[in-house]
Amino acid sequence: MPPSLDDLLHDRYGPAAPSLTGEAHALLASQLQHRSVRAFTAQPLPPDALPLMLAAAQSASTTSNLQVWSVVTVDDPSVRERLFELSGKQRHVRECPLYLVFLADLARLDAIGAERELRREGLDYLEMLLAAVIDAALAAQNAVVAAEAMGLGVNYIGAMRNQPEAVAEVLGLPPRAFAVFGLCVGYPDPAQPAHVKPRLPQAAVLHRNRYDATAHREPVATYTQAMADFYRRENMRTNGDWAQHSLNRVRGPEALLGRDRIRHALAALGFPAL
Amino acid sequence: MPPSLDDLLHDRYGPAAPSLTGEAHALLASQLQHRSVRAFTAQPLPPDALPLMLAAAQSASTTSNLQVWSVVTVDDPSVRERLFELSGKQRHVRECPLYLVFLADLARLDAIGAERELRREGLDYLEMLLAAVIDAALAAQNAVVAAEAMGLGVNYIGAMRNQPEAVAEVLGLPPRAFAVFGLCVGYPDPAQPAHVKPRLPQAAVLHRNRYDATAHREPVATYTQAMADFYRRENMRTNGDWAQHSLNRVRGPEALLGRDRIRHALAALGFPAL
Repeated sequence: MPPSLDDLLHDRYGPAAPSLTGEAHALLASQLQHRSVRAFTAQPLPPDALPLMLAAAQSASTTSNLQVWSVVTVDDPSVRERLFELSGKQRHVRECPLYLVFLADLARLDAIGAERELRREGLDYLEMLLAAVIDAALAAQNAVVAAEAMGLGVNYIGAMRNQPEAVAEVLGLPPRAFAVFGLCVGYPDPAQPAHVKPRLPQAAVLHRNRYDATAHREPVATYTQAMADFYRRENMRTNGDWAQHSLNRVRGPEALLGRDRIRHALAALGFPAL
Repeated sequence: MPPSLDDLLHDRYGPAAPSLTGEAHALLASQLQHRSVRAFTAQPLPPDALPLMLAAAQSASTTSNLQVWSVVTVDDPSVRERLFELSGKQRHVRECPLYLVFLADLARLDAIGAERELRREGLDYLEMLLAAVIDAALAAQNAVVAAEAMGLGVNYIGAMRNQPEAVAEVLGLPPRAFAVFGLCVGYPDPAQPAHVKPRLPQAAVLHRNRYDATAHREPVATYTQAMADFYRRENMRTNGDWAQHSLNRVRGPEALLGRDRIRHALAALGFPAL
């Protein structure tokens, strides 16, 4: 029997789960069951998986219909190997059946403008980098929802941003294109199951009319305990509790795994960020 | 009879629709039917809509489980009115039953670090702004998919970025929090239906192993024609064809509706972007 929506909400929030009326929904169940999959079987994907994921991705909203994102699918083993090396050597980047790199892509619009001899100085502003990053993220998440509904598992690879210039060179990116993140896709290995990770209670994340800077205090205390239980269940060794572990990721530039250079990298890739 | 997946793919891509094998899927149909809704009925949302959308949002991936995003729901009419004025006076911002503002939020992690007296200089880097923007976008898109599956319609409001400091003041945002976009939610008004907008053929967006800088040329020509038909059907007056209309949005800083200032606005909001 599949888990009920209430069960899934309980997995996500523990006793702080919102109480719900109305019909449980297969889609919501699929969304709530999301977990980052790091071990995949060798089973190849059905031939329609990629075009369907892409159709879902392109159905997401995009800033003024500019569609300033693209995706590179990487099946050449030597290219995959280079990306693996450039992103912290995570085994699943090398081993997943389908590896996608989502791009913030102002290069296509720039090329179209060049072909038509149209002005396009607006592309030089930080706003357009943000618009392209947002476009790429909305598209990717729609692709993820579609993939998970097809029984596939995924894992976002933020480490694509560790060395942006080298990644751009490997993928032959033109100026004004930037790899925002990668996405591993495949059938989850049932022998190495991933589990739903608890999130902050809704009260920590949702504000009403004005931001309440103290709203997180009680929920974070509850959550720290939930994450301690999660770390124990998953045999994860962390640097202290959730708060300490998380703050350690942002303690200083040395903790950003190269991404402290990202402003300079983006300038080198044709994003002047005025 | 609901439209078939093939019909929906045809609406999105015309004759360039990918040909698919396998089972049609209710979720994919819901994703493919996405359109931006600008006219809502007065019907209030069911009480579980917001907690369910939020649960979907929180189930999305987040950078290192840092959860560096938040959301503000705006039901106070005077706050709604101010946001309406600050974002190009789009009627639906004032009139939609539920209005959400998604935040890139490094403030919560900063506050937790301050309470624990932990170092957090990493928060000053552009990487962390990008991580927070990506977190907010992944979360929002999951909420959108959930809302649409419940029969609701949505519209992203990028114009929340036109005047970031004023929006931050209205919402009482602390330093290191930034309104990335708004989201109108409600039941679509059947008297003013929105239609599925065509997107670029997949060949323009999907690259294999290396970026092909000429991949867009033929697809863009096909698409320009599809969009001309769409503009005609929808009685939309545009500045020339899709390419001209799109390039006009990025012709120069004066076309960015205030967002050419976004780098300065972000610095003022506590994102030094080193």
